[in-house]
Amino acid sequence: MIYNDMNKRMQMARKKIYDALERGGGYTILSTGMTGDDSRLAKAVTDVGVRMIEPNHPAVALARGHRGVTVMHQAEQIRYEITVDQMAEVTRGVRAVCPPDTYITVGIPGGFTEVVPLPLKEEDFVKMAMAGADGLHIHKSSLRDLEDVVTMAHKYGLLVDAYIGMSTDLHTFGLTADDTESVRTIARQMEETGADMIGMMTGMSYEGVEAGKIHPIIKERLCALVETVKVPTLAEGGINITNFKAFKDTKVNILVIGTSIDKMVEKAAQQAVTDFMNI
Amino acid sequence: MIYNDMNKRMQMARKKIYDALERGGGYTILSTGMTGDDSRLAKAVTDVGVRMIEPNHPAVALARGHRGVTVMHQAEQIRYEITVDQMAEVTRGVRAVCPPDTYITVGIPGGFTEVVPLPLKEEDFVKMAMAGADGLHIHKSSLRDLEDVVTMAHKYGLLVDAYIGMSTDLHTFGLTADDTESVRTIARQMEETGADMIGMMTGMSYEGVEAGKIHPIIKERLCALVETVKVPTLAEGGINITNFKAFKDTKVNILVIGTSIDKMVEKAAQQAVTDFMNI
Repeated sequence: MIYNDMNKRMQMARKKIYDALERGGGYTILSTGMTGDDSRLAKAVTDVGVRMIEPNHPAVALARGHRGVTVMHQAEQIRYEITVDQMAEVTRGVRAVCPPDTYITVGIPGGFTEVVPLPLKEEDFVKMAMAGADGLHIHKSSLRDLEDVVTMAHKYGLLVDAYIGMSTDLHTFGLTADDTESVRTIARQMEETGADMIGMMTGMSYEGVEAGKIHPIIKERLCALVETVKVPTLAEGGINITNFKAFKDTKVNILVIGTSIDKMVEKAAQQAVTDFMNI
Repeated sequence: MIYNDMNKRMQMARKKIYDALERGGGYTILSTGMTGDDSRLAKAVTDVGVRMIEPNHPAVALARGHRGVTVMHQAEQIRYEITVDQMAEVTRGVRAVCPPDTYITVGIPGGFTEVVPLPLKEEDFVKMAMAGADGLHIHKSSLRDLEDVVTMAHKYGLLVDAYIGMSTDLHTFGLTADDTESVRTIARQMEETGADMIGMMTGMSYEGVEAGKIHPIIKERLCALVETVKVPTLAEGGINITNFKAFKDTKVNILVIGTSIDKMVEKAAQQAVTDFMNI
């Protein structure tokens, strides 16, 4: 049972997404990495029009130098040690500095299939709702787990974006669908489960792809997803400035960008200090 | 009384400073702001040679969007609400990802003359030493307070960098010395007190200064400081790419740079997302 106020909360969150998509002619970017969890940078990107932001626990592990991790691949191994309280603190900060119509979806420990699996507790959903999240960024890998998360998220007025991956992916970031037909089946099931947005993991490396293009298999999978569901769709992983247009051409609505922005930001910091040191 | 191990700890810390100064021909930059407290950016700048880093509580207030502050002037008003535990977490992270010869000096609540004055407790020094700080970045405004801090810092093997300001400064960031003769007197007293590095606050605005120059009064004050003390000297506030050379010409050893780098980093993040949104 979903209380009226929580339905209203979700309607307000959905409006943020649809407004962002309308402004972008059916597309928008979801900014993550540093711009998702550092309030200074989240404000900077919303100042120039970004309206979807994603703080997540592996990025926070990097931000905090947790266990000395410095690359995302390592961060994925220990991200489960970041706490829901830390993610709530980050969310509260980003919420406080970004415009009210910014949609904030948050990756929290236990919201992904973790290396050391963690239970999501009812109080975790309450904490994230109270911190000002609009939704949860979920990388569960079974329909049953996703169903549980969606039920609890909706109970507290949080939307859910959930993902589809492949069994050969380096990290488990979603429900497995190894061929295009499975993508359709799984996507349909996820939508029936109540997932509010459905994404495709697109970071798997394929050799021999020309710069600016995306691999035909990824393209086929993305198009299958877009055709199958009515909810907004996302693409996450491997999106950069050269292949962005090819991703957009699949008609996927939301393009998740993290590493690509982080690299440019890190380079700018390095350039700044190098300029000073060279005087 | 200072224990032998703690003397050794301070010797190791001093070596980091002198090594950095030697590599820079008597100069080095101290990188703060985002590059001081976000482990991703601290690593990025140490990767290109920076060896002095300063996390501080007002910058962390901005990083965490604490109370929704978005500019440093506001952050100074509420920075005392950031906790020593948060600063210890930040320090542990930066320590974990930066090269071992990186000198880390940390601004902590109570280490500055706060809007709401806070006591520094003995356990706060222990926490910062355990977190891996080499020193404390201190903005106390009386000799007596500075003496207390130095005694306790040295007890736990932490060095201290302390500052001189003016009574007309917007924020109280050090001991007051309104004329050049006072600068000499105060600097000498600070050195006798045991301050390991002494800095001049240089951010006060003076109208009519040409681009690339520093105001004659700031120059005179800095030169007086440099001539008076044997310990390494710092300049903090208002240093940017155009006036950096003029600051260096005063022979001050360590140039503290925060806002100027942050601005370039924020601009890079904005450029990155704008590039994506324009495709």
